[in-house]
Amino acid sequence: MSTNASAVNQSIARTTAATRFVTLRGDYGTGDFVMHRGGVLKEVVVAYESWGALSSNHDNVVLVFGGLSPSAHACSSNEDPSNGWWEYMIGPGKPIDTDRFYVICVNSLGSCFGSTNPSSINPETNEVYGLDFPDLSIEDIAKSAHHALMDLGIDHLHAVVGSSMGGMSSLAYALMYPDEVDHLVTISAATRALPFTIAVRSLQREIIRCDPGFKKGRYNPQEEPTCGMVLARKLGLMSYRAAEEWHQRFNRARVPPERKSNERFGIEFEVESYLDYNARKFVKTFDANSYIYLSRAMDLFDVAEHGGSVNAGLAKIQTKTTLVIGVETDILFPVQQQQEIADGISRSGRSVEFVQMNSINGHDSFLVDEEHFSPVMRKYFESTLA
Amino acid sequence: MSTNASAVNQSIARTTAATRFVTLRGDYGTGDFVMHRGGVLKEVVVAYESWGALSSNHDNVVLVFGGLSPSAHACSSNEDPSNGWWEYMIGPGKPIDTDRFYVICVNSLGSCFGSTNPSSINPETNEVYGLDFPDLSIEDIAKSAHHALMDLGIDHLHAVVGSSMGGMSSLAYALMYPDEVDHLVTISAATRALPFTIAVRSLQREIIRCDPGFKKGRYNPQEEPTCGMVLARKLGLMSYRAAEEWHQRFNRARVPPERKSNERFGIEFEVESYLDYNARKFVKTFDANSYIYLSRAMDLFDVAEHGGSVNAGLAKIQTKTTLVIGVETDILFPVQQQQEIADGISRSGRSVEFVQMNSINGHDSFLVDEEHFSPVMRKYFESTLA
Repeated sequence: MSTNASAVNQSIARTTAATRFVTLRGDYGTGDFVMHRGGVLKEVVVAYESWGALSSNHDNVVLVFGGLSPSAHACSSNEDPSNGWWEYMIGPGKPIDTDRFYVICVNSLGSCFGSTNPSSINPETNEVYGLDFPDLSIEDIAKSAHHALMDLGIDHLHAVVGSSMGGMSSLAYALMYPDEVDHLVTISAATRALPFTIAVRSLQREIIRCDPGFKKGRYNPQEEPTCGMVLARKLGLMSYRAAEEWHQRFNRARVPPERKSNERFGIEFEVESYLDYNARKFVKTFDANSYIYLSRAMDLFDVAEHGGSVNAGLAKIQTKTTLVIGVETDILFPVQQQQEIADGISRSGRSVEFVQMNSINGHDSFLVDEEHFSPVMRKYFESTLA
Repeated sequence: MSTNASAVNQSIARTTAATRFVTLRGDYGTGDFVMHRGGVLKEVVVAYESWGALSSNHDNVVLVFGGLSPSAHACSSNEDPSNGWWEYMIGPGKPIDTDRFYVICVNSLGSCFGSTNPSSINPETNEVYGLDFPDLSIEDIAKSAHHALMDLGIDHLHAVVGSSMGGMSSLAYALMYPDEVDHLVTISAATRALPFTIAVRSLQREIIRCDPGFKKGRYNPQEEPTCGMVLARKLGLMSYRAAEEWHQRFNRARVPPERKSNERFGIEFEVESYLDYNARKFVKTFDANSYIYLSRAMDLFDVAEHGGSVNAGLAKIQTKTTLVIGVETDILFPVQQQQEIADGISRSGRSVEFVQMNSINGHDSFLVDEEHFSPVMRKYFESTLA
């Protein structure tokens, strides 16, 4: 393993002292990383963070895949004491207990937080990939994580855990490397995207592509298509939460005069202000091309491609136990899709626990609803050690 | 009543031989139309179509308010034989039977299909209003329809019927003119917008406003901000239908190669193609400023402004009977909001029938689900004659 300055220079600004990097040896040690839907990447870097200690026989590894938005910083550490995106879930004495497990969170291939992505330099041309980056698949994200672990000397996982897009990645991992995964947790994931969800993501991408600043993906990194990204993220935020949560939280509250926009048809309701604040915060950290590639990867993912049908694909999973969690208020990855995952894996005789949460926070519940998620995850991870 | 060429010239291109126009006498015959939230319009024109014959004592009038998108062409006629937006509902022998009723559908004030709207000429400046058009309220739409009817010699309604935004307009009408309405039908309406719905509409408006072609509402009518309008309409279409309908209709079907876009990240799934086709079709007929004004009017509408609370506002309604219809798959005007309307009106002792439809077509069900809506509406209108 090594770091490669040229390949990571674009996205390294988005990493911290806690981020580590593996430059993959590539498929069969060739240095080439063959993409699932065609094309080859060279000198692929995977960024990751880890917590806890690797046991001497390497039998306590928990791999965590995040959603579209976050970096590998799932949890704070000495090197980066800021809160991670799953701070309540990972750490000493927490549900995924780093006193027992060695937890690795990878930054997905294609994401702009340190792993090779469309804003990386193509070592063959010495130019930024932009839209010349090959089509990205969830399978590529799973494979890059697998290669990174192999290069780190880890060839077996106690568990793979993933939420949202990460839930798709964890499904792909368990499908593609069935002998190497003991336990699987998928949260608000999907075996394949449904048309409503495809429509939401397609519109987000089109909004970004229509921003004149996008320039067919050849924007200057200092002049990103901010307007399109803000609009796309607002649509994302709307799909990540639930109407009833906002009803309770904002109802029809108006912003006070000092925060009201002077612009005609500008911000007037608190819900508009909330969306604007959070979208602008996100856009400062995220790259437009990464957004588009990861978004499309989710549309294209289809477990049915692994065996001819969703159930044939899920039947490849060989885990000892699986935990599937769905949320009733999730409109993006509806709870019926979680039921489908649970049913499909249990059909082949595997032990599956399906938990249907009545969280009010929609698709994002796993990020914020510690009260419901903590005890379920704690109990499950304890059971995997029994 | 008269037509006024200067005030209608911009939007008359969007009308047909069946469209008629009333230039309102204005408040107290002054010619001024005072807007609900401030500002005054002069020489206000209301476009409408009508079907059936007015009875000698003017007791068979049914007023129909449409949603944001349609014109007054709810139904075909000799003058305009093309199908109207509610063709299955209105006509001889149909649920709203023009053999019995004189049906008038008005084009909402602010809409671009013939009524005074932001693309009209301000007679005081001889320039297009643009964003100088005053804030538009649902109450203004109701009042302009009321003034138009008065000017046509109609001072009492057998029924007011409205769906979506038109349902809000019909509620406002029944609230504001309680002595003049015998029967009321609201379909997929709301007493006030909830924050999720405000967020959807706010984002649509912002997408349009961010289109460089929008030019703060001063675009050339021949160079509308088409890109922003297409994107906003796609978001609208997504909120008007239901995920399960698209699942059954499109699932993950791909467009055939000959219809596939060559552009990177262009159209690949049938659901994307469907949205693109329908959004582009709509945008050819609709004006961006009208869209923004009508959209904001829905956010601002709040029955609670009429008496201090939603129930106090609804208690003003004095109809003999009311029919409230909601659809279980409607995510924009959820069925709970229909229940609220029914409960609020019946609380003051009025006769209210509440019908919860299990249509699969979401908010748009009233437009397309003839099978469920026809019998309910037919039975109700027959009951009003009993």
